[in-house]
Amino acid sequence: MAASASISKTIYYGAFVHSVSLADLEVCPKGALGVDEAGVIKFVERDAADLEKIKAKHGGEWKEASVVRVDDGFFFPGFIDTHTHAPQHPNTGLFGKTTLLDWLETYTFPLESSFSDLQKAQRIYSNFVSRTLSHGTTTCAYYATNHVPATNLLADICLKRGQRALVGRVCMNTMSPEYYRDASVDAAVAASQESIDYIRSIDPAGDIVKPIITPRFAPSCTADCLSALGNLAQQTDAHVQTHVSENTSEIALVQDLFPTSKSYTDVYDTANLLTPKTILAHAVHLSPAERQTIKARGAKISHCPASNTALTSGCCPVRELLNAGLTVGLGTDVSGGFSPSILEEVRQAIWVSRFVAMQSPSAAATDNAAKLSTAEALYLATRGGAAVVGLEDRVGGFEVGKDFDAQMIRLGSAPEGGEQNGTFELAGGPVDVFGWETLEEKVEKWVYSGDDRNCAAVWVKGRLVHRTGRYEV
Amino acid sequence: MAASASISKTIYYGAFVHSVSLADLEVCPKGALGVDEAGVIKFVERDAADLEKIKAKHGGEWKEASVVRVDDGFFFPGFIDTHTHAPQHPNTGLFGKTTLLDWLETYTFPLESSFSDLQKAQRIYSNFVSRTLSHGTTTCAYYATNHVPATNLLADICLKRGQRALVGRVCMNTMSPEYYRDASVDAAVAASQESIDYIRSIDPAGDIVKPIITPRFAPSCTADCLSALGNLAQQTDAHVQTHVSENTSEIALVQDLFPTSKSYTDVYDTANLLTPKTILAHAVHLSPAERQTIKARGAKISHCPASNTALTSGCCPVRELLNAGLTVGLGTDVSGGFSPSILEEVRQAIWVSRFVAMQSPSAAATDNAAKLSTAEALYLATRGGAAVVGLEDRVGGFEVGKDFDAQMIRLGSAPEGGEQNGTFELAGGPVDVFGWETLEEKVEKWVYSGDDRNCAAVWVKGRLVHRTGRYEV
Repeated sequence: MAASASISKTIYYGAFVHSVSLADLEVCPKGALGVDEAGVIKFVERDAADLEKIKAKHGGEWKEASVVRVDDGFFFPGFIDTHTHAPQHPNTGLFGKTTLLDWLETYTFPLESSFSDLQKAQRIYSNFVSRTLSHGTTTCAYYATNHVPATNLLADICLKRGQRALVGRVCMNTMSPEYYRDASVDAAVAASQESIDYIRSIDPAGDIVKPIITPRFAPSCTADCLSALGNLAQQTDAHVQTHVSENTSEIALVQDLFPTSKSYTDVYDTANLLTPKTILAHAVHLSPAERQTIKARGAKISHCPASNTALTSGCCPVRELLNAGLTVGLGTDVSGGFSPSILEEVRQAIWVSRFVAMQSPSAAATDNAAKLSTAEALYLATRGGAAVVGLEDRVGGFEVGKDFDAQMIRLGSAPEGGEQNGTFELAGGPVDVFGWETLEEKVEKWVYSGDDRNCAAVWVKGRLVHRTGRYEV
Repeated sequence: MAASASISKTIYYGAFVHSVSLADLEVCPKGALGVDEAGVIKFVERDAADLEKIKAKHGGEWKEASVVRVDDGFFFPGFIDTHTHAPQHPNTGLFGKTTLLDWLETYTFPLESSFSDLQKAQRIYSNFVSRTLSHGTTTCAYYATNHVPATNLLADICLKRGQRALVGRVCMNTMSPEYYRDASVDAAVAASQESIDYIRSIDPAGDIVKPIITPRFAPSCTADCLSALGNLAQQTDAHVQTHVSENTSEIALVQDLFPTSKSYTDVYDTANLLTPKTILAHAVHLSPAERQTIKARGAKISHCPASNTALTSGCCPVRELLNAGLTVGLGTDVSGGFSPSILEEVRQAIWVSRFVAMQSPSAAATDNAAKLSTAEALYLATRGGAAVVGLEDRVGGFEVGKDFDAQMIRLGSAPEGGEQNGTFELAGGPVDVFGWETLEEKVEKWVYSGDDRNCAAVWVKGRLVHRTGRYEV
């Protein structure tokens, strides 16, 4: 799919749904979103039964606009994946009963180290970007590997396919296998700089792809390496991503490795790696003091519930993080996470919040306050994620002046006489709509039953970047 | 799809995978399963590189046998869904933040009561049987509603489509809404008897459909109603299904309603409803004494993790139930559960076991013993479920003398140059196989990433009962 073709003024016509605040999901049954040639939303109409009237209202320039309709679904903002590992894609679903540290040794390092092979990188990265796009992910914060050419290739692929991406060359100069490690602090910094320069050269405005400085996690980097990367972040004003407080053994390891630090978070703070452009993945077991430090620095949290559950890392108390004023988005964390889908992550965030509720010390009664609602989880997947990657003014919802990063969700209809021919392939995928549902209920059905089959088309900045056979162009 | 066409001797040729015990999954890369005209497995070959040799070995009658091959996947036993509510299908995904008791009032009773409308029942039941078949469910224990005609219609549909089913007319003579309640104990028993007689008349051998006595749950039935249904179970030698110990408020309610009972389980035991043919759904909060009673009576457990999580009912400690010697299968419990797929339930059982592990009082270290392995969860989904519904001698695995109830799992292959045309529809669904995976790893990928798209075809007793466009007949 070419992401470079020029686009014309387009009216996206039909129902739309988006978050307006953490608790509130706007559900508009008859809307119209006017998007200009630059992919910017120029008008949002909420009572658009008569399309001709809408066109007339906005003047002659909209008379000849293209119209993209959705009748059996709705437009929804593109998902933001705030943390995932593109090279681990082939390991999706392979974790067995491991936890973080043995999982890294068993599954992750051997695969990542093979990305010196650019042909292999091409196949896996192309496939993974296709996968994330097919699930409606319009912006993705990617860990790559420590290989500069393969990292740059991932940025090339994202730019070509039109998916917004933060692409990070992974740094690690200790406690990684001999065969997969930076030779020195200087080498780690130089390679990071090289990848930053390349990515900024292919997209100088940073509209689609941007570099992100990526110390794997504290145990993989010496203190001087972390500090050097902190300096690099300051010099380059680049984004930063790393992991924090994922599992209790890892936290104990960090305390051993950095005996003078006050906490895992403090290790990064000491190295000046906590900035308003920093994404911290996991944050499952943070102390109140660590939360305060992160808030004070303006760093952001990527909540990765599928991964935390699969690797038995713990149940992140998201409500507490939100109540502490932290900015939270969702991350698939492939392949600790077992799915490239943020919609799956929405569900997993809801399940984890229920487990937090059920763990409540108030015994019999569950702690209902801990539970995330459907609306809240969708907020984390869109506006929350946008704020985590620093794009809250550009994407995440449908407002005039924002870019049109969106998915067309189609739901189909349960066959009147039942499905008799043994296949649901023509019936609209996994969601069963019987016809009496409200739009709110359709949204619930999509969240709990839907998948990539319902994501008929995806746009970034008004450009079509993915479609299924169900969306004809 | 007609399930009544006669079948010919068939050799199912390719990899097969099935549980041999709770812990052990047999993975055979080059197998052959010979199935006769009655749908019975006549031979199982594990080293079947040369098909002609296999045919010759088994004699002239297999020379002309049909051959069904799978090259990019494997044969797997059909799934057993030990607990679900067919009429609640249209409510799938609708639960919000409710828990059991308010969920029943808000979502369930209004929908179920509408099944006095047979046309509506036809649409919903046809659709739901198609759905469960499409996910590889070859046997299903269904709750219907309290309407005899609609319940009998569900049995008709299962028989016609060829899905093994236990079909239960729901009894409730108290604490249900006035508009949806049995008028008296006698009326409840008579209606149950009527449905039992009908279902036995359409399938006298009980090969495909059987009746099951279904007191909704203790709070919906008075003590005399439960006793009368216990008597009916004894007189008719029918299966029994009900719910037990799902959520703590419900348990407290049962204690209030049955003040002389020793426990929730004791209420059923007093009514002689705990038999070797009884399925108890949920069993989340059982005391050790209750587990002992259930074991002593030979009753079985349907573990419904998706539902327990969605409704915040609790984390069923499955390992403890297994260690106590109880027989456990999986149930989707639609629409408390949000999916008609037992494969999803396999994943959810694994997640719940991880949450149990993370709740362990042994603090920092998680209780690894609580975690279900992939193999164990697949066992619950097949052999465990078969034992729960009393079919352990007929289905659940591939052995000579068992019926061939099976699914063909196809996995496809990740495109060599990446997926460029914006759709994965031709690439084999949601699982990415790169070519270097072992068959064991492919099974893991299927379990954690797969869905109904990978379930290319389904057989019950050797009859094709579902196929997707990817399986040509």
